[in-house]
Amino acid sequence: MSLSSRDALVELRRELHRTPEPAWREFYTTSRVVDEIERIGVDDLYVGREVLDSDARMAVPDDEEIADWYERAREAGAREDVLEKCAGGHTGAIAVLEKGEGPTVALRVDIDALPITESTDDDHLPAREGFRSEHEGTMHACGHDAHMTIGLGVLQRVKDSDFEGTLKVLFQPAEEVVGGGKAMAESGHLDDVDHLLAVHVGLHHPTGEVVAGIDGFLAVTQFHAEFTGAPAHAGDAPEEGRNAVQSLAAAIQGLYGIPRHSAGETRVNAGRVEGGTASNIIPESARLEAEVRGETTDLKEYMYQHAMSALEGAARSYDCEVDVDVVGDAPSAVSDDALVDVVSEVASGVDGVSSVVRNDDLGGSEDATYLMRHVQNRGGTASFVCVGTDHPTGHHTATFDTDEATIPIAVDTLAGTILDLGASSR
Amino acid sequence: MSLSSRDALVELRRELHRTPEPAWREFYTTSRVVDEIERIGVDDLYVGREVLDSDARMAVPDDEEIADWYERAREAGAREDVLEKCAGGHTGAIAVLEKGEGPTVALRVDIDALPITESTDDDHLPAREGFRSEHEGTMHACGHDAHMTIGLGVLQRVKDSDFEGTLKVLFQPAEEVVGGGKAMAESGHLDDVDHLLAVHVGLHHPTGEVVAGIDGFLAVTQFHAEFTGAPAHAGDAPEEGRNAVQSLAAAIQGLYGIPRHSAGETRVNAGRVEGGTASNIIPESARLEAEVRGETTDLKEYMYQHAMSALEGAARSYDCEVDVDVVGDAPSAVSDDALVDVVSEVASGVDGVSSVVRNDDLGGSEDATYLMRHVQNRGGTASFVCVGTDHPTGHHTATFDTDEATIPIAVDTLAGTILDLGASSR
Amino acid sequence: MSLSSRDALVELRRELHRTPEPAWREFYTTSRVVDEIERIGVDDLYVGREVLDSDARMAVPDDEEIADWYERAREAGAREDVLEKCAGGHTGAIAVLEKGEGPTVALRVDIDALPITESTDDDHLPAREGFRSEHEGTMHACGHDAHMTIGLGVLQRVKDSDFEGTLKVLFQPAEEVVGGGKAMAESGHLDDVDHLLAVHVGLHHPTGEVVAGIDGFLAVTQFHAEFTGAPAHAGDAPEEGRNAVQSLAAAIQGLYGIPRHSAGETRVNAGRVEGGTASNIIPESARLEAEVRGETTDLKEYMYQHAMSALEGAARSYDCEVDVDVVGDAPSAVSDDALVDVVSEVASGVDGVSSVVRNDDLGGSEDATYLMRHVQNRGGTASFVCVGTDHPTGHHTATFDTDEATIPIAVDTLAGTILDLGASSR
Amino acid sequence: MSLSSRDALVELRRELHRTPEPAWREFYTTSRVVDEIERIGVDDLYVGREVLDSDARMAVPDDEEIADWYERAREAGAREDVLEKCAGGHTGAIAVLEKGEGPTVALRVDIDALPITESTDDDHLPAREGFRSEHEGTMHACGHDAHMTIGLGVLQRVKDSDFEGTLKVLFQPAEEVVGGGKAMAESGHLDDVDHLLAVHVGLHHPTGEVVAGIDGFLAVTQFHAEFTGAPAHAGDAPEEGRNAVQSLAAAIQGLYGIPRHSAGETRVNAGRVEGGTASNIIPESARLEAEVRGETTDLKEYMYQHAMSALEGAARSYDCEVDVDVVGDAPSAVSDDALVDVVSEVASGVDGVSSVVRNDDLGGSEDATYLMRHVQNRGGTASFVCVGTDHPTGHHTATFDTDEATIPIAVDTLAGTILDLGASSR
Repeated sequence: MSLSSRDALVELRRELHRTPEPAWREFYTTSRVVDEIERIGVDDLYVGREVLDSDARMAVPDDEEIADWYERAREAGAREDVLEKCAGGHTGAIAVLEKGEGPTVALRVDIDALPITESTDDDHLPAREGFRSEHEGTMHACGHDAHMTIGLGVLQRVKDSDFEGTLKVLFQPAEEVVGGGKAMAESGHLDDVDHLLAVHVGLHHPTGEVVAGIDGFLAVTQFHAEFTGAPAHAGDAPEEGRNAVQSLAAAIQGLYGIPRHSAGETRVNAGRVEGGTASNIIPESARLEAEVRGETTDLKEYMYQHAMSALEGAARSYDCEVDVDVVGDAPSAVSDDALVDVVSEVASGVDGVSSVVRNDDLGGSEDATYLMRHVQNRGGTASFVCVGTDHPTGHHTATFDTDEATIPIAVDTLAGTILDLGASSR
Repeated sequence: MSLSSRDALVELRRELHRTPEPAWREFYTTSRVVDEIERIGVDDLYVGREVLDSDARMAVPDDEEIADWYERAREAGAREDVLEKCAGGHTGAIAVLEKGEGPTVALRVDIDALPITESTDDDHLPAREGFRSEHEGTMHACGHDAHMTIGLGVLQRVKDSDFEGTLKVLFQPAEEVVGGGKAMAESGHLDDVDHLLAVHVGLHHPTGEVVAGIDGFLAVTQFHAEFTGAPAHAGDAPEEGRNAVQSLAAAIQGLYGIPRHSAGETRVNAGRVEGGTASNIIPESARLEAEVRGETTDLKEYMYQHAMSALEGAARSYDCEVDVDVVGDAPSAVSDDALVDVVSEVASGVDGVSSVVRNDDLGGSEDATYLMRHVQNRGGTASFVCVGTDHPTGHHTATFDTDEATIPIAVDTLAGTILDLGASSR
Repeated sequence: MSLSSRDALVELRRELHRTPEPAWREFYTTSRVVDEIERIGVDDLYVGREVLDSDARMAVPDDEEIADWYERAREAGAREDVLEKCAGGHTGAIAVLEKGEGPTVALRVDIDALPITESTDDDHLPAREGFRSEHEGTMHACGHDAHMTIGLGVLQRVKDSDFEGTLKVLFQPAEEVVGGGKAMAESGHLDDVDHLLAVHVGLHHPTGEVVAGIDGFLAVTQFHAEFTGAPAHAGDAPEEGRNAVQSLAAAIQGLYGIPRHSAGETRVNAGRVEGGTASNIIPESARLEAEVRGETTDLKEYMYQHAMSALEGAARSYDCEVDVDVVGDAPSAVSDDALVDVVSEVASGVDGVSSVVRNDDLGGSEDATYLMRHVQNRGGTASFVCVGTDHPTGHHTATFDTDEATIPIAVDTLAGTILDLGASSR
Repeated sequence: MSLSSRDALVELRRELHRTPEPAWREFYTTSRVVDEIERIGVDDLYVGREVLDSDARMAVPDDEEIADWYERAREAGAREDVLEKCAGGHTGAIAVLEKGEGPTVALRVDIDALPITESTDDDHLPAREGFRSEHEGTMHACGHDAHMTIGLGVLQRVKDSDFEGTLKVLFQPAEEVVGGGKAMAESGHLDDVDHLLAVHVGLHHPTGEVVAGIDGFLAVTQFHAEFTGAPAHAGDAPEEGRNAVQSLAAAIQGLYGIPRHSAGETRVNAGRVEGGTASNIIPESARLEAEVRGETTDLKEYMYQHAMSALEGAARSYDCEVDVDVVGDAPSAVSDDALVDVVSEVASGVDGVSSVVRNDDLGGSEDATYLMRHVQNRGGTASFVCVGTDHPTGHHTATFDTDEATIPIAVDTLAGTILDLGASSR
């Protein structure tokens, strides 16, 4: 089955949808992607540790967690040669096509899934059509299954074309935890890239609409805070405890108490909490996983500084201590006009495209910004392209779905742009 | 009119009820008490500054506030000689009867009122009978009008008796803010006291019941905390503000978050707050008036230490500063068995007494404890006597009232005890 | 002294600066403005109750508060005829010049001051030069002293010109509490206005810069919440209390907990709090003065709805009740391009103007929006003009000041625009 | 090995210490206890489902959790016949000795462990001597290993004696979650009991001290609250979320905000929290495990009612819902004087006992109170006996340990009391 047909693309997307894996645990996913890359045939193929600056990875889970998914992937039939390169949480791949003299163009797609239990409702297409997540509690709820499919579809299309230049398709892990972008940006593979494209489906744009250049990426920092107090028997000697859960509660309220900023948008979320052991023991420890964002990197910093005050004050209030680890980070970025021009023009001619929007704001964060900035800092151009899709509910919800008509539109738009970039350099 | 009759006592009590004055502002009250003392005739009379260690006063209001009440008292007819001695917030009086060889016995009554607006309801006797507070917003809602009357009644009775010894009746100011006890205790007047009696009506005991020795005084510390941040326009530049009201809110929650203690009762109250200027300005400052209590002085200290953590953490959380002033303080204390024995025996024979309880817990705080400890530390004995009264609602409420039948019972019990102490020393 | 000279304008501004009066209490101010209007000479003059829809007033203080300032104004020499029309908190004035056939143009200036204690620092010009506020605790900290002066300066200039049409200068009260705009908008005086100009100095633009049309008004709702619980003695029976101050604290936390909105800017501020009576009484009541804002009226509504949840939940948590009163409100608005064009062109030619900015965002709220919308809804055009001033510190701070060079620039720009509008209609 | 010797008792205690199992999962423990009971030889033996009113069990974990421990117990060698009777979380045993005419005496010991990771410190005897918990994360940190040993030691001793009457030794599960007492009390086995003894080591009393009758049991209710909101992408659309973790934080603050009560001791603890999924997702759900206690059942109810207000208000504040399940409950109780007399007298003569205290307060909760009340309500007597032990750190801490000298003292005291009760009935 070649990925030239729409049916083949849809079939692949549904297969990938069934086996979502969370950040840094995309072992089976990487193996399947490698299968497809090899089937298409490329000049160079880098896998796992070869595509990452290992030390620049953020939000890597603990060894046990990695081992569990590693084993699961092996049992599901992941290739041993791929697994070996991915050991220790080094997932992802880069496929390189060298088709003569010309610019080096890169296309970045992301491959990880989210810790969400997928809906079993009949109104939810993957449930109705039988390709719902087989990894209970994990779900492709942000369209990365489609992104990978698009990346492979573009690879096939460019392979089959008379493109002159070099194409790199980057299958980046760990986007959802904004932990993988920096590691791939600093891997060396981006150093010679002239033009970088990244792609995302949906973002509240309907099927048939393409946004040539997304801006308004919110800079983000994700952090974990660990509060430590002292345990005690809650009935016998409550005065001997220092209750870490009370500090946690005050910290949550403190985080939301950070003033809004007149210079632009900010965000804060206390996304995950856990603390204590049992109702009759004063909690000795409590953990908070949270994030702050800003329309600019400065605004994100403003939020982060105030967040630290909130955490320290909350610890102090209840005589606890707090330790903070930054586990994810991404700057803001903008798409380059010159590249946005090309995408716009190409998209206008694509079958199925009824509307081309030049720019729109993301209103979220993306560690594609690390790759974009890396290329831009070396004189290249970058654009983050959104291909609209009729998604029934918001991204990151249990009933999110990608309208499959989006996939060929995205392949046409991106492959067309790449061909055009090759042509335009002649 | 001599204070020998019940009618005279009731009339005086009603008059005093009409003109309540808050702590350290009992100017008119002191003047009226001095009138009565002089009418009775005593050997020594000390007033205002003469009965206090000025530096040991706590919770003294600001000059303007004192001046307002001072002026009001003058306009109402307070004596100039008394006012002069009371200038600057030095209220209260001590009457001394010297009736030959014998022990020195002191009776302490308190004279200040509360910042409560008295009920206008017809069910409330002072409203119905026309002796409701004439100082709107201030009220004798804890029976100090009755206490003063009892103190004067006892003075008259002992004057008219064959008691041998010295009697000092102490009219102490500023009990409600636990600010006057220490200042009177350290005035020198208590140094030669052999037996100290203090009296309180009610405390949830009915008319006809006497508690010979109250224990279980909660130690208390009252403090003011001032939070300081930075103002800013709430719409234009919220990020430039540091919101003292947010620190205040966190502090309140932190105070209530202090763990209960297995060693005994504790208390905490955020009793008064004020902060900010207008809804469109980020509040630069906020003030908290609060208190902590403990069944023992150690438990009170435990609460106070944790309260300071709560305040400091709350300030830190929102990048504000906090300053704390202790404005009131009282230790715990216990009534002496030997003295409780005497009161018990005397009370049993008093007309109108149907029940004598040896001991009961106060469950509140009282700065009579400073005086009790002062006497006890010098080898004397002390007892805090409760004379029950059918009060329709709790102390410190707008409809609190003293059953006037209580007043002669109290006079009989206390005067009887004093006579007995005089007799017993022979 | 005619207001034609810069010196006269500066002198008047300094005089007005000395006698700031807060919202709905601008009695002396109105009287002084009326003096000046009469000196200039107009065709119609409306004062107080005549310029307002009384029922549409918001944030009117209580009678006693109004009476205090009313009396103070009388003592300071306010005219009896003006005071009479202003009785009960009906301040402000409208001056009308009828100069033949032509459009009706209105200029709105605001007249109230803020509850801020003015700096006594020598670096603060009004302190150094002796025209600091004589009303301790109240201050023209937002430039309304300059606005009134500009309004009168424009009136003088147009009076002296060959303008053809009708000019109304609106001296609007109670802008700081967003309480006066609606009442003047609905007074009838705006119904026939073809072009409305409003003016503000500063807004972080330097002297010499003019912004022809301010947009980005934040819609705002200001409200008061009154929490009611039950009082009790804090030591004796804490369980009998229901602590309104605890509800207040939770409400503050809840207000700041309202999620930021991806559709645009929002604001929230707990600007003033007060509760309880004394540290040993469980607080029976507590009051919160707060506001919410949004970049659009919808966003403001989003904030308001969530604020109500926060208040109700906070009351429920501590078994208290809460009552909410809306005391101020203003929609968002935009300046009309056609009018902005005129202001831009005129400003470019004004002496002292070095920079003309077409549009900028206010980032705050203004009840001029009520007047703008009223005129726009009837087919007229409106623009909110900002005349930059080098202000040493932010608006609404104790050291805010207006660079007096701004005043003639503003008069030139606005009078020029009005003349142009008259001319252009010919 | 007979349990008559101190060495045998110590050896058994250390074995049991090695294999702690949490509430309702004491499968291996029950099997080992049954082994010992059979070795001793009794007249009747009831196991698992036979000793419980299944429906009255509280705080039963979910099926998967039970199945895990069940399987672990089987692998460790638990007997199939015992496992079968314990299926579905029905643990515990009752051994019955019938030794002729006489009273029915019951001795209750508890058998479950705590979710605490045992210390590996060399100062901790079980670590140093090699009998530390083999079930990582679970620990006998409250002495139940000693309690079981004492129960078996007493059974052996009475078996070997000339006691006349019936002895029932009750091995009760799930005390730590106050979930097992009610189920055993209502099993029918207590209906004919004339005298009930329960035993606890330590409680801050040193080795050599016996408290004949513990009082001051705090009544307790343990509950789980589940907050439900709506998830959303934290960067993209924070306004679409309803954040359950914010409700959780407010609930924690609210719980600690419940006023202390003048009628006696109260407690509250937010002992365990968990919520949300990832830092970039607005948390849809959050869970709180908490408890309230009171010196009397009424005080516990007071706390519970206020806790419900706090939870409901916290849910309301952030537009979430909350569901509450009560998972554990125990009333207060008092030891009977007549039985305390017997224990006192017997203990005085026991080897190693240097001090006998008649009564002391527990200051904690215990579901032995269900059994005590059951027996008392039918005319029997009950006493909760404390046998002191030098424990290096508090109960429920990772370094808690039982001084093994305590075990023979406890056996002597309890067996002696039982013999005396048998004798005294003759």
